[in-house]
Amino acid sequence: MIRLWIEDGALAAKKAPKPRRKAGHALLKLIRGGICNTDLELLRGYYEFTGQPGHEFVAEVVAADDKSWIGKRVVGGINVACGKCVYCGAGMGRHCAERTVLGILKHPGAFAEYFTLPEANLLAVPDGVKTEHAVFAEPVAAACEILDQVKIGKDEAVAVLGDGKLGLLIGQVLAAHGAEVHQYGRHVDKLAVAAKAGIEVHLNEEPPVKAYRWTVEATGRADGLKDAIAMTRPRGTVVMKSTVNGEVSLDMAPVVVDEITLMGSRCGRMESAMKLIKSGKLLLEDLITGEYPLEAGAEAFLEAQREGSMKVLLRGAA
Amino acid sequence: MIRLWIEDGALAAKKAPKPRRKAGHALLKLIRGGICNTDLELLRGYYEFTGQPGHEFVAEVVAADDKSWIGKRVVGGINVACGKCVYCGAGMGRHCAERTVLGILKHPGAFAEYFTLPEANLLAVPDGVKTEHAVFAEPVAAACEILDQVKIGKDEAVAVLGDGKLGLLIGQVLAAHGAEVHQYGRHVDKLAVAAKAGIEVHLNEEPPVKAYRWTVEATGRADGLKDAIAMTRPRGTVVMKSTVNGEVSLDMAPVVVDEITLMGSRCGRMESAMKLIKSGKLLLEDLITGEYPLEAGAEAFLEAQREGSMKVLLRGAA
Repeated sequence: MIRLWIEDGALAAKKAPKPRRKAGHALLKLIRGGICNTDLELLRGYYEFTGQPGHEFVAEVVAADDKSWIGKRVVGGINVACGKCVYCGAGMGRHCAERTVLGILKHPGAFAEYFTLPEANLLAVPDGVKTEHAVFAEPVAAACEILDQVKIGKDEAVAVLGDGKLGLLIGQVLAAHGAEVHQYGRHVDKLAVAAKAGIEVHLNEEPPVKAYRWTVEATGRADGLKDAIAMTRPRGTVVMKSTVNGEVSLDMAPVVVDEITLMGSRCGRMESAMKLIKSGKLLLEDLITGEYPLEAGAEAFLEAQREGSMKVLLRGAA
Repeated sequence: MIRLWIEDGALAAKKAPKPRRKAGHALLKLIRGGICNTDLELLRGYYEFTGQPGHEFVAEVVAADDKSWIGKRVVGGINVACGKCVYCGAGMGRHCAERTVLGILKHPGAFAEYFTLPEANLLAVPDGVKTEHAVFAEPVAAACEILDQVKIGKDEAVAVLGDGKLGLLIGQVLAAHGAEVHQYGRHVDKLAVAAKAGIEVHLNEEPPVKAYRWTVEATGRADGLKDAIAMTRPRGTVVMKSTVNGEVSLDMAPVVVDEITLMGSRCGRMESAMKLIKSGKLLLEDLITGEYPLEAGAEAFLEAQREGSMKVLLRGAA
């Protein structure tokens, strides 16, 4: 089979044997994959990654212990938890200390004709939901995670910093929740998608000072946090979504004096994401820049790295 | 009258005219003042401060619009709010954008024979509470603020980083609340006070990694936050108490991945503090290093800056 492989800062499509599934794991055949900024970070050396990337996918179940899965179209949670530790016991499997992570940490990713994942991680894609929508389940879940962490009231103003793929999804998810989203970005084409979704957009604007109770930092830049803090009013919250390789130099005294909360936010629940995708409230096709067959993965990654690019999809074999 | 004065990085006792009180403000006669690390930071150039410092005090009311205050022993909230803005309207006067702050920002401080403060800021010291205990009301309130911000369960473990004046008070306040406090510090004499209060102490220990759901950073060092983050487990909270002049370089990716919350925390409610002081649960006299008459303020500040020094008090005229 064909799989994508990252090694020494380069990505290539390579031949490899079809993986064998362990007990409790399903063998999955890729239908569509989505390239995420984390994949680009891995290619740049984040986590000193070598291996098979990919954690956004829709796949068909080819084999599984529970035969009722076979033939189903699925998405899946990317954190493979041990099921035994204190975090797993507390329902925090996404923070299991022993976890592997699909395509990121010690678990071969979804950018291959076939890959495996525990059956417990699978979620069926409901009939009537397009594959090109369902493939957004993982980043939509990451956006939904914000609403699991903080109680943003309907009609409350929220600033979203960044107009990348994740920033745009966050804006749409918060708008679908009922919040008044103000999206700050640097790309007219990307902000146009937010505007189409009914979001107030701010292109290349100096962000207002101490203006928002809620600010979401999704610029993908380490120093985006400085702007996010400056925009947030006393006792307000900055939700931090950027996982970038790099340090940022911060003066924390204003954060202490203004009693601002900085909250890290990562993966969310796939069920919430699929429910929201099924509702039809999100404009997802507008976020797709292009689609490439798996064997053209290197071109697909180049396209994903192009300034102005949004979601680039990979297509599994027919 | 005598007052202390900071200018160009130096502190001196100087003569000055007695202040006139504005309508709604009380004229206060200093009984005791307490030197805080913020005062030492102001002396070092924080906020480019020039003026009369002091914000921890017990005073006698000499004159006031409301005559019932006269002769009373009082402490007082240090934030002088406008009473009109959106923050004041929301009960967040301590975050009023137009506020002045006693001895810190545009309001002459308490280290003077006489000073003024709005009557609305005053809180009477109950009979039976010693002046040497009541003078801790402001930093005890800052410690109590943590319990207003986060719900730390009784018997939950909390790491307190730092064994300075504020760190020791925080440890005691959280222990009085019922938490299992682990105090990390570098000074055997200071940790001895915590141990006497029944707190588990850790001298010069490498902090354990991802060990605590709750961590309070009170080292007074900008880079204390790095240790605090490393000690905190996924979905845990770091309460940030250090207001220091300086930047810290941080890699925020682990904070995002582990969904850690960093929460700034500053002043608290004087009422809560006085109630706790009155309860007798805090060991306060053990925190006092020395007492100096106001006119020996320069010596008192030198003593407060000495490594190993804890709370240094200033005594008003008899």
